[in-house]
Amino acid sequence: MKTYGFDASLPAKPVKNIGVVLFPSFDVVDVFGTLEPLNLLSLERQLNLYMIAATLDPVSTAPRAMNAFNSSFGEVIVPSHTFDSVIRDQSLDLDMLLVPGGIGTRAPDLNDTIQFVRDVFPRLQYLLAPCTGAGIAARAGVLDGRRATTNKRSWEETVAYGTKTYWVARARWARDGCVFTASGVTAAIDAVFAWIGHVWGEAVAADLALGIEYERHTDPSWDPFGEHYGRSDVPPLT
Amino acid sequence: MKTYGFDASLPAKPVKNIGVVLFPSFDVVDVFGTLEPLNLLSLERQLNLYMIAATLDPVSTAPRAMNAFNSSFGEVIVPSHTFDSVIRDQSLDLDMLLVPGGIGTRAPDLNDTIQFVRDVFPRLQYLLAPCTGAGIAARAGVLDGRRATTNKRSWEETVAYGTKTYWVARARWARDGCVFTASGVTAAIDAVFAWIGHVWGEAVAADLALGIEYERHTDPSWDPFGEHYGRSDVPPLT
Repeated sequence: MKTYGFDASLPAKPVKNIGVVLFPSFDVVDVFGTLEPLNLLSLERQLNLYMIAATLDPVSTAPRAMNAFNSSFGEVIVPSHTFDSVIRDQSLDLDMLLVPGGIGTRAPDLNDTIQFVRDVFPRLQYLLAPCTGAGIAARAGVLDGRRATTNKRSWEETVAYGTKTYWVARARWARDGCVFTASGVTAAIDAVFAWIGHVWGEAVAADLALGIEYERHTDPSWDPFGEHYGRSDVPPLT
Repeated sequence: MKTYGFDASLPAKPVKNIGVVLFPSFDVVDVFGTLEPLNLLSLERQLNLYMIAATLDPVSTAPRAMNAFNSSFGEVIVPSHTFDSVIRDQSLDLDMLLVPGGIGTRAPDLNDTIQFVRDVFPRLQYLLAPCTGAGIAARAGVLDGRRATTNKRSWEETVAYGTKTYWVARARWARDGCVFTASGVTAAIDAVFAWIGHVWGEAVAADLALGIEYERHTDPSWDPFGEHYGRSDVPPLT
């Protein structure tokens, strides 16, 4: 993937194969809010989905720590591919990779996930990293020299991962070339619609939004949450 | 579950155990958009989740028909309980049951799902049936004599399942006593926040919405989609 700096006027690349990174305690709206319009779009054109995790063992959203109330509450997702199998199969063109956020981004053992994002990034046409998924992307180094945003509640801990990134404090989502980041959780839905509009055109995005009865935020600078939390831009340290 | 007619002023019932009905080609935002704030809430109080399907085999969202473009696109979820096991275990108090919609509601073999909703309904405190999940609830007979809404694009085929239901054409969601229905797909998110506000109070709902950076529609009559599709109320036929 080329680095396009601050140029947001790139022509769209064709997209057929979409990958999703899964790790324990990922956020479900980051993944399924993003996939919802793509599930529908897959009925109208050929799209293939790769659900990619460290192993083929099912991945749970249940938090492994932070369970002071003894809840038994989590959803379990089955991966279709492993990080290793995708890295080894150089013939697999992943046109877009979704890197979700979630409580699991705070786990100490995310190194395999971060390494996968770092290794596969040069083969991508697009990266979408909503919410604290931007923290994984930052730790993988792929936000270096780019403009990005992230979850406004988890702002400080996440922007600390990307000291070479310009972090935009008032943004529903941010695009820098082929890299889309988004603010917290439901901002992923607005970001994926912006991306769909870029790749397949605004009419396709508008029809999909109508189909899921969603009132989009189409202004990337709409962000009452950045304001609520009093966040300010964080320029690169270096 | 008692029938409360049009009274929306009921006191809240305590909620601990939440069930989700899964069937092939269910809609992911109906399920995961609804579960997102409950996943977070399970960190603050004891909640238990039951993912319930016909068998314990993983359930895919991929459409079994309608795949003219040869896409390979679907997410696969692991159930934790079967319909039979929940019906047999009378000691299991399901305080809320979520019945999602989706393309799968049009499948010819939904009888086991419909029968499960019919059989378990008397044991529930609350039923949430967003989108075309309202069609399953209607076919189970549990919307008889109630006020409900559903997906505005799939309106005509869905309201036909509930000839004893008053279908509200301009509603983001509708509440009739303990039964919450919602308009298409993303309306589930507004409906679950309304339900959370009812059960645990508005302050809890507002904090969870802030946590997922979601601008709620708090007016149940907000519905540009009912207007877009020109839908009108459908009173009971009998």
